[in-house]
Amino acid sequence: MGIFQPKGVVYKSAAKVDLGPHSGEFYLRANVKAPRMAGLLVKIFALLLESRILGPILLYFLKRNNLIHKLVSYADLEEDPVFVPLQPYEDIKEQDVKSLESNLSPAVLVQEAVDCLNPPQTILSNPNFSFRHWTILDYSSAYISRKINPRMVAERFIVAVRQSSEPSLNMSFFINYNVEDILRQATESTLRFERGQQLSALDGVLVAVKDEIDCLPYQTTGGTRWLHKVRSCKDDACCIKRLRICGAILVGKANMHELGAGTSGINPHYGATRNPYNRDKISGGSSGGSAAVVAAGLCPVALGVDGGGSVRMPAALCGVIGLKPTFGRISPLGVLPLSWTVGMVGVLAGTIEDAFIVYAAISGELPMHHSRTYSNIHLPVLKSPNYISGVRLAKYGEWFNDCANDVRICCSSAVDKLHKQYGWEVVDITVPEIEAMRLAHYLTIGSECSNAVASYLEKLGRTELGWDARVALSVYGSFSSREYLNAQKIRNRQMQFYKDIFTNADVIVTPTTGVTAYTIYNDAFKTGELDYVNGAALVRYSIGGNFLGLPAVSVPVGFDKNGLPIGLQFIGRPWSEATLIQIAYAMQALCISDCRKPEVFFDLLKED
Amino acid sequence: MGIFQPKGVVYKSAAKVDLGPHSGEFYLRANVKAPRMAGLLVKIFALLLESRILGPILLYFLKRNNLIHKLVSYADLEEDPVFVPLQPYEDIKEQDVKSLESNLSPAVLVQEAVDCLNPPQTILSNPNFSFRHWTILDYSSAYISRKINPRMVAERFIVAVRQSSEPSLNMSFFINYNVEDILRQATESTLRFERGQQLSALDGVLVAVKDEIDCLPYQTTGGTRWLHKVRSCKDDACCIKRLRICGAILVGKANMHELGAGTSGINPHYGATRNPYNRDKISGGSSGGSAAVVAAGLCPVALGVDGGGSVRMPAALCGVIGLKPTFGRISPLGVLPLSWTVGMVGVLAGTIEDAFIVYAAISGELPMHHSRTYSNIHLPVLKSPNYISGVRLAKYGEWFNDCANDVRICCSSAVDKLHKQYGWEVVDITVPEIEAMRLAHYLTIGSECSNAVASYLEKLGRTELGWDARVALSVYGSFSSREYLNAQKIRNRQMQFYKDIFTNADVIVTPTTGVTAYTIYNDAFKTGELDYVNGAALVRYSIGGNFLGLPAVSVPVGFDKNGLPIGLQFIGRPWSEATLIQIAYAMQALCISDCRKPEVFFDLLKED
Repeated sequence: MGIFQPKGVVYKSAAKVDLGPHSGEFYLRANVKAPRMAGLLVKIFALLLESRILGPILLYFLKRNNLIHKLVSYADLEEDPVFVPLQPYEDIKEQDVKSLESNLSPAVLVQEAVDCLNPPQTILSNPNFSFRHWTILDYSSAYISRKINPRMVAERFIVAVRQSSEPSLNMSFFINYNVEDILRQATESTLRFERGQQLSALDGVLVAVKDEIDCLPYQTTGGTRWLHKVRSCKDDACCIKRLRICGAILVGKANMHELGAGTSGINPHYGATRNPYNRDKISGGSSGGSAAVVAAGLCPVALGVDGGGSVRMPAALCGVIGLKPTFGRISPLGVLPLSWTVGMVGVLAGTIEDAFIVYAAISGELPMHHSRTYSNIHLPVLKSPNYISGVRLAKYGEWFNDCANDVRICCSSAVDKLHKQYGWEVVDITVPEIEAMRLAHYLTIGSECSNAVASYLEKLGRTELGWDARVALSVYGSFSSREYLNAQKIRNRQMQFYKDIFTNADVIVTPTTGVTAYTIYNDAFKTGELDYVNGAALVRYSIGGNFLGLPAVSVPVGFDKNGLPIGLQFIGRPWSEATLIQIAYAMQALCISDCRKPEVFFDLLKED
Repeated sequence: MGIFQPKGVVYKSAAKVDLGPHSGEFYLRANVKAPRMAGLLVKIFALLLESRILGPILLYFLKRNNLIHKLVSYADLEEDPVFVPLQPYEDIKEQDVKSLESNLSPAVLVQEAVDCLNPPQTILSNPNFSFRHWTILDYSSAYISRKINPRMVAERFIVAVRQSSEPSLNMSFFINYNVEDILRQATESTLRFERGQQLSALDGVLVAVKDEIDCLPYQTTGGTRWLHKVRSCKDDACCIKRLRICGAILVGKANMHELGAGTSGINPHYGATRNPYNRDKISGGSSGGSAAVVAAGLCPVALGVDGGGSVRMPAALCGVIGLKPTFGRISPLGVLPLSWTVGMVGVLAGTIEDAFIVYAAISGELPMHHSRTYSNIHLPVLKSPNYISGVRLAKYGEWFNDCANDVRICCSSAVDKLHKQYGWEVVDITVPEIEAMRLAHYLTIGSECSNAVASYLEKLGRTELGWDARVALSVYGSFSSREYLNAQKIRNRQMQFYKDIFTNADVIVTPTTGVTAYTIYNDAFKTGELDYVNGAALVRYSIGGNFLGLPAVSVPVGFDKNGLPIGLQFIGRPWSEATLIQIAYAMQALCISDCRKPEVFFDLLKED
């Protein structure tokens, strides 16, 4: 009987857990017991998991050995479950913000955001940078001054995407792009500029969209080769409609990890998105394509979806900004429902100012479709980097340091700079039960993803899926309602912990990922790969943003010894995006002079 | 492979379902395929279900044959899941109500409620009734006029409970009552009256409490013989604290179906609560004891908990009022967390006025513990029964009529009376997917109950449970997270349907139960019984109140040919308890002259 009645831990009441620096809470390193697998091994593993007899036995041991049984499934928890991390809206006090109704037109919000940039920073206005991505305002001012027009930029974009797809580069940035549609949008935008009737600072600006968000004329694949056959895309997602109102040019559907069910960005159907800083390395996932196109200069901004770090993690690996707003801030309308309680649209951008402008554009529902009361939106005034004062950065040393050497050194040095330059205080804290939350989140996103695709897969059969996705779905589909409910009880505990932490701190600071971009091996292209050790390191710091609905931002702060980017993450209290953007702006100011040009880069604004 | 890949139905979009009277939606009669079992058969069935090999196979066929697979588990649903039926608070327009902040003291709310009764109806003031239960105001005015005092009533209560427990009656009303504690409270109340310092109209009024609600000095058993050993009751539940503030005398823990996991009220550990109208019949469940003590005259009011009709159903079977407020109206603090998303404290009372007074007393949190913004509370002014006008009663004929003959005739006649006496309009509607919702609710409450008791049972072993509860928990524990999520999608659909229905109607009217109280057979006392056919008929009309969080009330409207009570149910829109109470008041006025005295009745206010 023994092995069939796993023992769970008995958690003490959340209120009794000490969150102070000298807490007796134990930091549990992720104890991932699974070898890297690719190629034939993944196939065998998938088939075993799908076997009616061996599958359940194998799953039992997988879950037991990776502590899911102990920490989640059979745990004894006295908290009630909390199912949705929609925190009650509070119009929190933030320094130097404009508070606006979120039912304003997206174009008005963009203008308000641009007005917050004072003075507007453009590359052209600042020749000190060794390298910097062109920004929205660089494009906008170039269009207004007639140095170039959106049509010309779109044509360069198309050439660049074709180059990136040639065997010599083979970047696998996009799943789909439609030349005709891009040129039509660009021509319309050009005409608006010619008439002096541009719609906003985003007019004529190229935006790539993760292929998990509905955007006409494309079908939405979710990184699969079948989802679009059974679910047709009939309308733009709400965030896409808002961008169109602002005049943005939607250039196509960025590559992603199949179903968002992995972190490498290696897609067996549409190729492994390569890292612009080093073609041999992953871009991360699941919004890998969105991060890579921004890094490579193809668009100043892109949209991703972040269900388990899927925006922040590839952003960090590709050296760009990744901003994931508070759960509920961005409408989920028209985003593939691969999960309901953890995923959120996020923004990838070359600079925090650009992430900010797009965040302002897509927040809330469409003005004409207001069906519920959205929170106000606070726009931070970004005058000078040291404008805000007295920021309290919470840091949990054992967690912060549980990463690769180069990441630790670089991120620690970034935090030191904040302290030295701005006098911001570092508050030592303990964040308890991090590994339990990672597993509870995995169980939750897995259950939801499995439910979301189950009825499709019954029609199609599993063979439509890539091999690594088959493995993921076998595990995802194995959870009981009891386990799911226990995971939601852990969500309740963690929400209490973080609420407590934020009474003494403004943000929590961590590395964004535990490792930098790792190598894409040849055996992984066709089957995908299973690398749970690297996977756990990649998501180590991401989960709170998803499971608890907290806003978070990743800022590039340096490079490892191989020249691969490193990101620092700030996690904020609910609805505090303005503060997060101010902090990221201050951090960016201390790092931007060290920016390096990616190995693969397309300069769409270059003078001919 | 065939049987292992069950097919689910494909639901069309909720928005496309026609809710009108001529809708093509099919009314699916509950197709329960399970014979009644008791005694040895239940034991064998429980052991089979618990067997590691045969159990899953048996469960598979049970779930398939009862359409759970088809309608819920493997259904294809495009709606997102909605996990918690907490409807956004709206300060809805209601006729003739007082709108009060819910953070007023319970005693003030009681006084405000009493002031709404104009003129106050008491038995003493109205000699026309053939029989009527003594009301709170009967007690209150008797205490004030010194005809009797709370101490004397308490003493009579204790004698009556002892009588009811003797072999000749064997009513099994209570799991626990403490003579010393009752007399202490009664003495204190008596002293208050002697000093003219009574706390409210509830001072000295006896209230029984379902043994699922924490109430000192008792341990809370939840109808089990073990829960109190592993979970100690350290404080009163919030609703109990509020009643104490009003001076109510809490007389003990009423019997209930074990873990609330059944509808008969037959408890193998504490006895089968018998129906005061006929000792051979069930009281219903799970709040059977609470309903029976009110019917038998032991208390004018009692508290129950309603997770699947558990207040309204025994109320109907025992000929009393059962009021289940909107989800979120009553604090769940101190109520056993046997489910999180469907259960709610409710009130059982001899008259709607009494249910109203207690509802006012227990709504909201304690004034000193306001941790969140509760909704306002509307108190209906009950001047004369025909005071409110223009009520629109929605009725779905096929559903309404899917019940025993006597129930149908009696309930139809009651609705006719409302139309004739008050001119209220009956709106014909279609309520789609009723059976799907019943199964989705079953899956939800089962999953939550299983999760809630799992860690206890692992310590204790299943043998602590009664045999019918063992069967229930075997089924409850068998659901996957996928099934649970599908059930929540059905919740979303149904919330949309009901919202739509309430745009054209004020309440939905149905019988409360499909059958009247059925016989307790001798083979059921020790093992409990499994009677899914009767069980489904009992809960047929209850589920919307729980799964969608809607307020609902059951009003006694007559008797079947065997003299067993029949209840009519009104289901209201969220937060519309005031309207529901007005409607129930008007209904009661048309039926109260036909009230009959129960076979088992204790007259605690009689003149000596």
